[in-house]
Amino acid sequence: MTSPQISKEIQLAARPIGMPKPNDFRLETVTLPALGAGQILVRNLFLTVDPYMRGRMNDSKSYTASFALNETMTGGAVGEVLESNSDSVHVGDFVLHDLGWRSHAIVDPARAKVVPALPSLPLSVYLGVLGMPGMTAYAGLLRIAEFKAGETVFVSGAAGAVGALVGQIAKLRGARQVIGSAGTAEKVQHLEQKLGFDTAFNYKDESVAAQLGKAAPDGIDVYFDNVGGEHLEAAIGAMKPFGRLALCGAISQYNNTSAPIGPRNLALAIGKQLTLRGFLVGSHYDLFDEFAQEMTGWLESGKIHFDETVLEGIEQTPDALIGLLEGRNTGKMIIKL
Amino acid sequence: MTSPQISKEIQLAARPIGMPKPNDFRLETVTLPALGAGQILVRNLFLTVDPYMRGRMNDSKSYTASFALNETMTGGAVGEVLESNSDSVHVGDFVLHDLGWRSHAIVDPARAKVVPALPSLPLSVYLGVLGMPGMTAYAGLLRIAEFKAGETVFVSGAAGAVGALVGQIAKLRGARQVIGSAGTAEKVQHLEQKLGFDTAFNYKDESVAAQLGKAAPDGIDVYFDNVGGEHLEAAIGAMKPFGRLALCGAISQYNNTSAPIGPRNLALAIGKQLTLRGFLVGSHYDLFDEFAQEMTGWLESGKIHFDETVLEGIEQTPDALIGLLEGRNTGKMIIKL
Repeated sequence: MTSPQISKEIQLAARPIGMPKPNDFRLETVTLPALGAGQILVRNLFLTVDPYMRGRMNDSKSYTASFALNETMTGGAVGEVLESNSDSVHVGDFVLHDLGWRSHAIVDPARAKVVPALPSLPLSVYLGVLGMPGMTAYAGLLRIAEFKAGETVFVSGAAGAVGALVGQIAKLRGARQVIGSAGTAEKVQHLEQKLGFDTAFNYKDESVAAQLGKAAPDGIDVYFDNVGGEHLEAAIGAMKPFGRLALCGAISQYNNTSAPIGPRNLALAIGKQLTLRGFLVGSHYDLFDEFAQEMTGWLESGKIHFDETVLEGIEQTPDALIGLLEGRNTGKMIIKL
Repeated sequence: MTSPQISKEIQLAARPIGMPKPNDFRLETVTLPALGAGQILVRNLFLTVDPYMRGRMNDSKSYTASFALNETMTGGAVGEVLESNSDSVHVGDFVLHDLGWRSHAIVDPARAKVVPALPSLPLSVYLGVLGMPGMTAYAGLLRIAEFKAGETVFVSGAAGAVGALVGQIAKLRGARQVIGSAGTAEKVQHLEQKLGFDTAFNYKDESVAAQLGKAAPDGIDVYFDNVGGEHLEAAIGAMKPFGRLALCGAISQYNNTSAPIGPRNLALAIGKQLTLRGFLVGSHYDLFDEFAQEMTGWLESGKIHFDETVLEGIEQTPDALIGLLEGRNTGKMIIKL
């Protein structure tokens, strides 16, 4: 490094109680150490915020380790290599890595993946449709929920990065009917008019059970759960025999300060012979090549539509996460630096 | 038939609210019609009562159709053929069929299965260890919960007909540890001293979560649920990553008059990547021959212990069902006629 590199970074200032607030975060200016043997210096171009990050802000055990107080948070990022002491990663390469929440990062190349620039798509797709959210939708729908052509699929959080892809993949793979729920009239309209959902509804308009019952009077075969709570209970009630529920997220409960209500009708799973399966995408990367090939084909042929809600500037990252948890995004929430 | 055959039968007199009461049932004396073409007349020797029957007493949809008011109830039975108009079933044969809750039945042979008398076992085993409850334990543990040798198994209702077999099959198939819960000190002692459970506890002594945590501080791989409610929630909390829960019954909830509490911690299924699978034994009879062969071997070699709680006389059948729902049985509840 010719001169000390400055990084602007977001640290966890306080553990949130309920919905995170701006002063739970702190913007720090950090002088990075000299580049070590084999390391690369990356200027981040795009950062991601994802719902699972809310759990990591708690002290309690979540999917992954908690973020440490007064340290820089982490998460997916795509950046450009500014300097390299690595034989395999070169200056000018673009890399996907997990040292997000900062403008610059010193990265071990073993924890970075070189990704090609794409002729017609922004590099942020590696954080969305061609990245973790895309894989989540693909593995969750096809492997966890064992979706088959001809089935009826319901997905909650359908305007989110994962949900929007679940619905579209289901249609492309031959779903009889795809139903999505979202939290605003605009999102509902978007699902039906842009994303090809057969039916969409605003879960705030009327009970989920009532709206789902109207949308699918004969029941559903697959439920992809991003939300938990009332949605999950309604889906259990609507499942056909031998239905499958992929439990991917429970965003309705992430800011709970008291114990949530469990699905009171879970005993229906016995008579209906349902399977509820929780999953983390990290366990299913054996599907990645198949996913990347099929998704790239859909993208190139214009069969998959993806949305991004983009905020600009590292200082917007906390608000991006808060906005995500409040449902202010349509599609993938991205921070552009 | 040389003379009209009289049958004593139990009819559903009223739909129970909460726990069934004796006057929800009525003992009737019925004159059977003449035997039709191909039919057989069976004198029932043993009747069964099983937890699922409680659901059938309600008007609401359950696993199977509701019992009709003022009609004779149905359920498993083993009997001897007194008369036969069938070419395939002969006088003197013993048959397993589903016209229980009565002393005599006119049966279509297509709905009856001829079973051999056994040298050292009562015919009632076809209603228990070699019948539906045995198959339930076998299919639920091995297929639904995908139990593998070396795993830790927790089963609720462990002194019941199904639970007692789940624990023993798990041990015979190489479980590292088998834990059972029951509702009396005598049952707990029986599980540990007679049935080979490694650990058993009385769920009335202390919270299930606390007792399960002590019994399996490192967690459990498989939970076989006969009970629902608090047990299910505690098991979800204790599951190891990639654990499987076979949802077989929810006897704690069958007499609920209000909505039960769902497991408030179900969102843990995401991070732990759990599978909860409800099942009905009727969907798994493709395993029957394998089950019957393995179970018969275990019985012949004395490796499986089975208990029966036997009440005598058709008029005891309602009390047998009430007793089963109250947990008064150890092992299979049987009515001997």
